[in-house]
Amino acid sequence: MTIPPPPVSRRRLLTAGAVTGLGVAAGAGVRPAAASAADTSIGTAVVAFHGPRQSGVAEDPPAHASFLAFTLQAGTDRSALGRMMRLLTDDASRLTRGEPALGDTDATLAVLPARLTVTFGFGPGLYRAARLPAPIADLPAFPIDRLQDRWSGGDLLVQICADDPLTVAHAQRMIIKDARPFAAVRWVQIGFRRSPGVHAPEHTQRNVMGQLDGTANPRGAEIDPAVWNPDGSSTLVVRRIRAEMEAWDKLSVSDKENASGRRMDSGAPLSGAAEHDRPDFAAVDEFGLPKMPDFSHVTRARVEDPRLKILRRPYNYDGVPDARGVPDSGLIFAAYQRDIAEQYVPIQRRLAEKDLLNEWITPIGSAVFAVPPGCAEGGWIGEQVLT
Amino acid sequence: MTIPPPPVSRRRLLTAGAVTGLGVAAGAGVRPAAASAADTSIGTAVVAFHGPRQSGVAEDPPAHASFLAFTLQAGTDRSALGRMMRLLTDDASRLTRGEPALGDTDATLAVLPARLTVTFGFGPGLYRAARLPAPIADLPAFPIDRLQDRWSGGDLLVQICADDPLTVAHAQRMIIKDARPFAAVRWVQIGFRRSPGVHAPEHTQRNVMGQLDGTANPRGAEIDPAVWNPDGSSTLVVRRIRAEMEAWDKLSVSDKENASGRRMDSGAPLSGAAEHDRPDFAAVDEFGLPKMPDFSHVTRARVEDPRLKILRRPYNYDGVPDARGVPDSGLIFAAYQRDIAEQYVPIQRRLAEKDLLNEWITPIGSAVFAVPPGCAEGGWIGEQVLT
Ligand code: HEM
Ligand code: HEM
Repeated sequence: MTIPPPPVSRRRLLTAGAVTGLGVAAGAGVRPAAASAADTSIGTAVVAFHGPRQSGVAEDPPAHASFLAFTLQAGTDRSALGRMMRLLTDDASRLTRGEPALGDTDATLAVLPARLTVTFGFGPGLYRAARLPAPIADLPAFPIDRLQDRWSGGDLLVQICADDPLTVAHAQRMIIKDARPFAAVRWVQIGFRRSPGVHAPEHTQRNVMGQLDGTANPRGAEIDPAVWNPDGSSTLVVRRIRAEMEAWDKLSVSDKENASGRRMDSGAPLSGAAEHDRPDFAAVDEFGLPKMPDFSHVTRARVEDPRLKILRRPYNYDGVPDARGVPDSGLIFAAYQRDIAEQYVPIQRRLAEKDLLNEWITPIGSAVFAVPPGCAEGGWIGEQVLT
Repeated sequence: MTIPPPPVSRRRLLTAGAVTGLGVAAGAGVRPAAASAADTSIGTAVVAFHGPRQSGVAEDPPAHASFLAFTLQAGTDRSALGRMMRLLTDDASRLTRGEPALGDTDATLAVLPARLTVTFGFGPGLYRAARLPAPIADLPAFPIDRLQDRWSGGDLLVQICADDPLTVAHAQRMIIKDARPFAAVRWVQIGFRRSPGVHAPEHTQRNVMGQLDGTANPRGAEIDPAVWNPDGSSTLVVRRIRAEMEAWDKLSVSDKENASGRRMDSGAPLSGAAEHDRPDFAAVDEFGLPKMPDFSHVTRARVEDPRLKILRRPYNYDGVPDARGVPDSGLIFAAYQRDIAEQYVPIQRRLAEKDLLNEWITPIGSAVFAVPPGCAEGGWIGEQVLT
C-alpha cells in the first residue's frame, strides 16, 4: 500500500492562521492548531511537537486522552533509556504531524492527528534506573488517600491527547509497541472532555459531577510562571479521584454549591454573580456567615501568588458500572507545575486536611513525574537528562 | 438552583435547516439534527425522539455510544414493564431535547444533547417475563464464537448515542437509576467513532483495524426496505468482536486487503479504483485469479437484494491493554434489520463458514433484541407490545 502523503502540511498553514484569529492561546514554542469546530479542520489540525518545551501542557486540552504508565524492565539502564526515548520521540514527532510511525502497522490511522500531543514524564524509578538524582519525589501520604497499586506509580508516563479517540488509540498502540523491549504497561487511564465543537474552546468544561471545572486555572501569560522552569522543564501529578456519585446525587443543589464554593449552573463564586467574578472571601450573608464557606473546595484550594498556582488539566473517566448500577467515574486529575513540593503539595495538604468536597471524592491513584524540556528537530526528549 | 432554559429550542430550528442543506439523510419521522461541525451547534443539535420509528437507527451515527443491557429483576411482570418503559421513555424524551430528566440529579449535564438518541430493544427474556411470544430468537451457535457471558444476552437493551461522551455518560446514569427498581445492569459496552468535525459526516469511518468500515452500507432510501417493518419495528444484533491486533499487525498490507477484499487506503474493492466502485466478482488478474478473493470478507458478506441487506452501525472499543501491551480492542458490531433470521443469520452463517478475516476477529459477545416502533408525544416505547 502506498500511504497518500498526509493532507496536513498545507492545511496546517491555513488553519494556524485561522486559529490565531480565534485568539486561542498556546504556550511559547507551540504552534497553535485549529481548536475551532469550523469545517473538518479538526482532523487535520497539528500541534507542533518540537520546541523548547513539550507540547500537551499549555494548549487547550483536546477532547480525549490516554495516560500510559510504564514499569521499566530490569536491565533498562541509562543507555537503554536513551535508545528508548530516541525511538519514542521519533514516533511522537511523526504521529503528531499526521505521519505514520516508522514501521507503523496501521498507517491508515495516522493521517488525522486532530491536535495530537504526546508528552513524556519521568518517574522516580526512571532516575533510579539511570543512576541519577531525581528532581521529583513521591507525594506524602494523605489521610484521604485510598490508593490502589493498579492506578499508582510508574517509571515512565506518556500522556497522549487528541480531539479524536481513534487517533489516541492508534498513537497509544505505536508507543506501547516501541516501548515493549524496555518497559511493561503498568496502568492506562482513558479520559474525556467535551467533544470538539460541543461548545466554544474558551468555554469551561463540566466534569462528571456536573461542575464547571477549570474556571480559576491560569491562562495565557499566567501559565508561564506557574508551569515552566527556565530550562523548559515542568512536573506532573496524576491522581485518579473517584466521584462518589451515589452520595453526591443525594445532595441538594445548594449543598453541592457549598461544598465547592461555586454555583452549579453558572460556576460563579457564591460571593458573586458571574463565572469569572473574583471570589470575595470577606463577603458575608444576611446572617453574618461568610458567603464563601471556610471549608469549601475553592476557599481551601485558593492560591494568589502566580508562581504558586498549578495548571489543572483533568479528564473525566467513566468506566463500567456494577450490577447495581453504581458508576465507576471520576477525574483523572492531572496537574502541571514547576515544582511539586513548592506548589502542589501545600494545596493538596490543605484540601486533605479540610475540604467539604472530600466526602464525595476519593483519591484511588497517585503518581508523580518530572517533565523534561522539549527538543529541537533531530533531538530527543530526555537528552538533557540522560546524556 | 434554577436551570436556565435549554438553549436548544431556538437553535434547533436554525440548525435543522442547515443540515437539510448538507443533505444528511434521516429516517422518516426523525427530525434531522446538525451533523455539521460548523461553529458550536454540535452541542445543541437535537434528534427528534418521537415518531413512528425509534431514533438512533437510521441517522448518521454520532461519535460516542453506550450499549446498556439489563437483566430484569424477578417479579418484573408485564405491568411492571409498562411502568418501567413509561419512565424510561419520559427520560429519553426529555434528555434528547436537552432537558433534565424528572428528578435529574445532575441537571447541568443535560443541556447539551449533541444529537443524543436513546433507543430501546427488547430481548427474548423480556417477552418471557411479559408472557408474550417473542419476535426474535437467540442466534444459532457459530463455530467461530468464543462467547463470554459477560458480553452476551440481556432482557432490555438501551443504546445511547451522542456526539459528546459526557452527554452519553449522563444519559446512561439517569437511565440506570430509573431502571433500578426493575432491572440490574448486565453489561455495558462503550464505543466510539471519529469525533464530530474530524472528517465530513458522509466520509466513511475507519475501525480500530484501520479499515474503512461502512462503505457498502444501505444509505438514504435503501435503508427503509432493509431496516423497517411496516409497523415501524426493527431488530438489533449486538456482537462484541475482538480484533486480534497482534496477529493483524504482522500481515502485509496486501494480505490485509485480500482478507477484506478492499484496499486499506482508499477502501476501493480489489476489482476497482474508488471506494464506491461496485465490486466485480467476475474480474480476474493477469494470472486468471479472481480480483475479489472467493473467501474475502466482502465476497462472503455481499448481499444484492435490497430487502436482505443489513444496516451496520458498529462502534470501536478500546479497553485497557495488558502488561505486555496486548490491546483489548475491536468492534461493538451493531446491526439493524427487519428480521434477524431472514437477513442477519444467512450472512453470519456464510462468514462463520469461510471468511479470511476470521483469523483476525473473534466474536466474544452476542445478543439479539426486538426494536419496538417509536411513539408519539405522550406515548411510550413498547406500548404496542406491552398493553
Ligand atoms: C475529583 C476531584 C476534584 C474536583 C471534582 C474538583 C473540582 C473543582 C471545582 C468545581 C473547582 C472550581 C472551578 C475551577 O476553578 O475550576 C475547583 C477549583 C480548584 N481546584 Fe479542584 N477539584 C478536584 C480535585 C482537586 C485537587 C486534587 C486539587 C489539588 C491538589 C485541586 C485544586 C484546585 C484549585 C487550585 C482550584 C482553583 C481554586 C481557586 O483559585 O479558585 N482540585 N476544583
Ligand atoms: C470485527 C468484525 C468485522 C470487521 C472488522 C468488518 C469489516 C468490514 C469491512 C472492512 C467491510 C468493507 C467495507 C464496508 O462495506 O463496510 C465490511 C463489509 C461488510 N461486512 Fe463486515 N466486518 C466485521 C464483521 C461483520 C459481521 C459480524 C457481519 C455480519 C454478520 C458483517 C457484514 C458485512 C457486510 C454485509 C458488509 C458489506 C458487504 C458488501 O455488500 O459489500 N461484518 N466489513
